[in-house]
Amino acid sequence: MNVLLVYAHPEQRSLTGALRDFVVQRLDEAGHHVRVSDLYAMGWKATVDADDNLDHEPGARFDPSQDSKWAFANGRQPADIAQEQEKLLWADALIMQFPLWWFSMPAILKGWVDRVYAYGFAYGVGEHSDVRWGNRYGEGAMAGKRAMLIVTTGGWASHYSPRGINGPIDDLLFPIQHGILFYPGFDVLPPYLVHRTSRVDQARFEMIRDELGQRLDDLWRTTPIAYRRQNAGDYDIPALTLRPELVPGQAGLWVHVVDCDG
Amino acid sequence: MNVLLVYAHPEQRSLTGALRDFVVQRLDEAGHHVRVSDLYAMGWKATVDADDNLDHEPGARFDPSQDSKWAFANGRQPADIAQEQEKLLWADALIMQFPLWWFSMPAILKGWVDRVYAYGFAYGVGEHSDVRWGNRYGEGAMAGKRAMLIVTTGGWASHYSPRGINGPIDDLLFPIQHGILFYPGFDVLPPYLVHRTSRVDQARFEMIRDELGQRLDDLWRTTPIAYRRQNAGDYDIPALTLRPELVPGQAGLWVHVVDCDG
Repeated sequence: MNVLLVYAHPEQRSLTGALRDFVVQRLDEAGHHVRVSDLYAMGWKATVDADDNLDHEPGARFDPSQDSKWAFANGRQPADIAQEQEKLLWADALIMQFPLWWFSMPAILKGWVDRVYAYGFAYGVGEHSDVRWGNRYGEGAMAGKRAMLIVTTGGWASHYSPRGINGPIDDLLFPIQHGILFYPGFDVLPPYLVHRTSRVDQARFEMIRDELGQRLDDLWRTTPIAYRRQNAGDYDIPALTLRPELVPGQAGLWVHVVDCDG
Repeated sequence: MNVLLVYAHPEQRSLTGALRDFVVQRLDEAGHHVRVSDLYAMGWKATVDADDNLDHEPGARFDPSQDSKWAFANGRQPADIAQEQEKLLWADALIMQFPLWWFSMPAILKGWVDRVYAYGFAYGVGEHSDVRWGNRYGEGAMAGKRAMLIVTTGGWASHYSPRGINGPIDDLLFPIQHGILFYPGFDVLPPYLVHRTSRVDQARFEMIRDELGQRLDDLWRTTPIAYRRQNAGDYDIPALTLRPELVPGQAGLWVHVVDCDG
């Protein structure tokens, strides 16, 4: 199978870098094809601007969505964006690997999402009617592909636990896992997390490597997070609110996961 | 009072830009002092790298935290970072204004946080003991200051409602409001939200302006979100989990807000 690893850390000799090398090696040994988008090494341009539409006329008003739509539809995107889209289409699975900075991804990786997820590619796709609201949340260009996060944090696991002060890690990652990965169609696997990265000695590194290796071996067997599909009947359209008879009276991020008890 | 407005949109002639101009004018008319960090206009460098520590030696291993700590402590940060920190210290209130892209802030603004929030400035501050875990979550360099988000979205309000498919907006903004603003000590006001930005005609724009104007007039009167303070007795230290007798048996983002019923 084909795996795209999108990697965002400024130092190759970091723990994140060591894990990246391990991921590539493990997948390679299993016979998979791996391509790595090492965003820092590529000098990835992080900011969306008018240069992202090669047909944008100097001085004209720049509309991030409409310019993206035009550039994508007319083959007028910069090469770096088009290449990443090609990699995504090639891939059977996407792995995003990054340190958690301020409870989200580093800016350079957010800029990869902001720029590569073009209008007509990752959003603004499909019919909008009274029974469908675009190909998204379970449908879309990435349908049939799998995605998984590998996230390193400085904090303790308990700080990210269900009652931990930072908020439960599943909730903090919801905007990424549901909003960035499930939205264009990926089946999202549970993340692989490494906490308290400043305290990883050789013994712990070997344990992490073994756990992560198992997750990679199981990449096509692991059950994805059971996010509800937008157009499969669970939501009222176009309000896109969960139908009243489902988990009645409840609200929050977890109601969007089938049979989740919060 | 002094207000810092950090603004992230690539097009000045956008709705976001028009609202920014209105915010500046309204605060100015009320006698406040306003400074604007217009990140696109400033050509803000979005990515954390070794250049952020002027003493970093070429080829040496770069550690984002440790290099940040050194540079901050020794006055060896690049001028752009130091200037933003000075603005934050000057301000009595911070307003962050941005379009919601992929359920979070644009990369350029994330890069402002990643770079300006130095070790020793926004984190890694204060005593760590069995009764305190640093000056954070209600304490820190920004204690006594207020912060508010102004966020524009393309989606409908119902899509971000308590049972909306995108997730409740309060939950999506938790990593920013709690993790980025409350963490270094800001009192966080409820956000001002504009949904469905592609459908703002003159009449709706005037209504938005009136609402937002009222929010600005009330900036020092509005009750902040009642996030629990880390070191005030609600959390076990160092696990930093909510003490069992508080909202017993419950979990999720909302348990970190006093008297919130979810």
